[in-house]
Amino acid sequence: MAKQLGCWLNGEPCQYIAVGDRGLSYGDGLFETMKVVNQQPSLWHLHKTRLANGLARLDISCNLADIECWIFEACQQHPAELGVAKLIVTRGGGGRGYSPLGSGPATVLIELYPYPDYPAANCSAGIHLFPCTTRLAHQPLLAGIKHLNRLEQVLARQEWQTAEYGEGLVLDQSGHVVEATMSNVFLVCDNQLITPDLSLCGVEGTCRAFIIEQAEKRGMPVEVLNVTLAMLFTATEVFVCNSVLGIWPVRAYQAHCWPEQKCWPIGHMTQYWQQTLIEVLG
Amino acid sequence: MAKQLGCWLNGEPCQYIAVGDRGLSYGDGLFETMKVVNQQPSLWHLHKTRLANGLARLDISCNLADIECWIFEACQQHPAELGVAKLIVTRGGGGRGYSPLGSGPATVLIELYPYPDYPAANCSAGIHLFPCTTRLAHQPLLAGIKHLNRLEQVLARQEWQTAEYGEGLVLDQSGHVVEATMSNVFLVCDNQLITPDLSLCGVEGTCRAFIIEQAEKRGMPVEVLNVTLAMLFTATEVFVCNSVLGIWPVRAYQAHCWPEQKCWPIGHMTQYWQQTLIEVLG
Repeated sequence: MAKQLGCWLNGEPCQYIAVGDRGLSYGDGLFETMKVVNQQPSLWHLHKTRLANGLARLDISCNLADIECWIFEACQQHPAELGVAKLIVTRGGGGRGYSPLGSGPATVLIELYPYPDYPAANCSAGIHLFPCTTRLAHQPLLAGIKHLNRLEQVLARQEWQTAEYGEGLVLDQSGHVVEATMSNVFLVCDNQLITPDLSLCGVEGTCRAFIIEQAEKRGMPVEVLNVTLAMLFTATEVFVCNSVLGIWPVRAYQAHCWPEQKCWPIGHMTQYWQQTLIEVLG
Repeated sequence: MAKQLGCWLNGEPCQYIAVGDRGLSYGDGLFETMKVVNQQPSLWHLHKTRLANGLARLDISCNLADIECWIFEACQQHPAELGVAKLIVTRGGGGRGYSPLGSGPATVLIELYPYPDYPAANCSAGIHLFPCTTRLAHQPLLAGIKHLNRLEQVLARQEWQTAEYGEGLVLDQSGHVVEATMSNVFLVCDNQLITPDLSLCGVEGTCRAFIIEQAEKRGMPVEVLNVTLAMLFTATEVFVCNSVLGIWPVRAYQAHCWPEQKCWPIGHMTQYWQQTLIEVLG
């Protein structure tokens, strides 16, 4: 997301924020990264739900109706058929040290970006996962929401630079599989779709929420549970997903541990959800 | 720290930063808050050491000599005898998502503030500690350094609003005593000065570092270890400290748990270090 295509602060065009904003001082805020298709934000209802959860969790007040209006107006300005919109909501300026008392009003930033130039093969042929050594800390008060404290993800993503790996798998302090650095993980064991429980750490992605919601509706509910590496190694399919990239099949992770040294296939379940997402996200 | 008295971005007067700065996007940076006495930053060598540790830990490149020069220049501009300078160093703009590859140069912000109007009684008569229920997560990769991911502190500080409590005590996920929301904790047990080990969470304050350094030099080394609530309750003195406020004696914490319901006295050790700090910090 190198070149920014436009930016609005509280609905007005703007490229800068005040140095005293608590988003900068403490990461005191939240963000959403959306796929923009034909000038509309995809899966907006799920982004809005997660944002609302985050605002409630951090006790940040703002007008969600204004934000919704600004997002749709901004996406209308996107110059391409496919793109990305990034929304940041911070507690605003002020307060006294860490105390939010007297802070605000909230800062609402919306930025437009071109659609990222991910290799097309990530979708069609799948990816290899880098084994990140950075472990996510257990913090139930912040788990699930997409807040601005993202140093763990920066550290994990910093661990590899080669194009060989499309994503990196991140475990928690207990060694459970949580997510990839910018996407959620699903696996198929005995024809059952499984995704890690995120009540102690990790981000509840909107694409993950979409799959959970749709799978429920279609009578094949996803199991949300603690996922061990042993479960991953016995899975018959693995994929990662987020609302911008869609679904990338995972072909390999630490191949030396594999049963019979085989790569994962791009199985039926992965293809089914890839297709379903394309229908919805474009 | 309500009214800002001046701000510089990379040495130039400035009140704004670019919306794409990774300090805002991910809290990808560090900060230092210094007491300014007679236009000089107090304990600069300790702030500089912690900043250098943090930069190395996050692998952020910048010119520390420039920063040092800008800090001393900025402090020269402080209009009062006593004040505060806040330094923020972020990884700068750019990178691709969480990956820092191609980001930078670093952003260096320096802000001047008036000295906070803490009640004088906090120093002379001591404070009551609020029992925060927010627990710090164990993250050894980020423990000790003063990074910009401070939501845990915001959540903890949000737990009380009354002036009755001068600070709040924060435990970790294991129930150990770690620190207060904006200061470090020391206790005296059997005439031995003790402070919590911060290798899993917490911030290694410069005032804490100063006391550890000076105590070592004076032949009465501080014990750094896991501190339980039971130890706290049997301590004969307790105090909190940071480089701006100095030392505040702690008089009470959950008094109902107290042996004989007595408040802690302001003991000899607390007074000794208060005096020593006043000599150094002013």
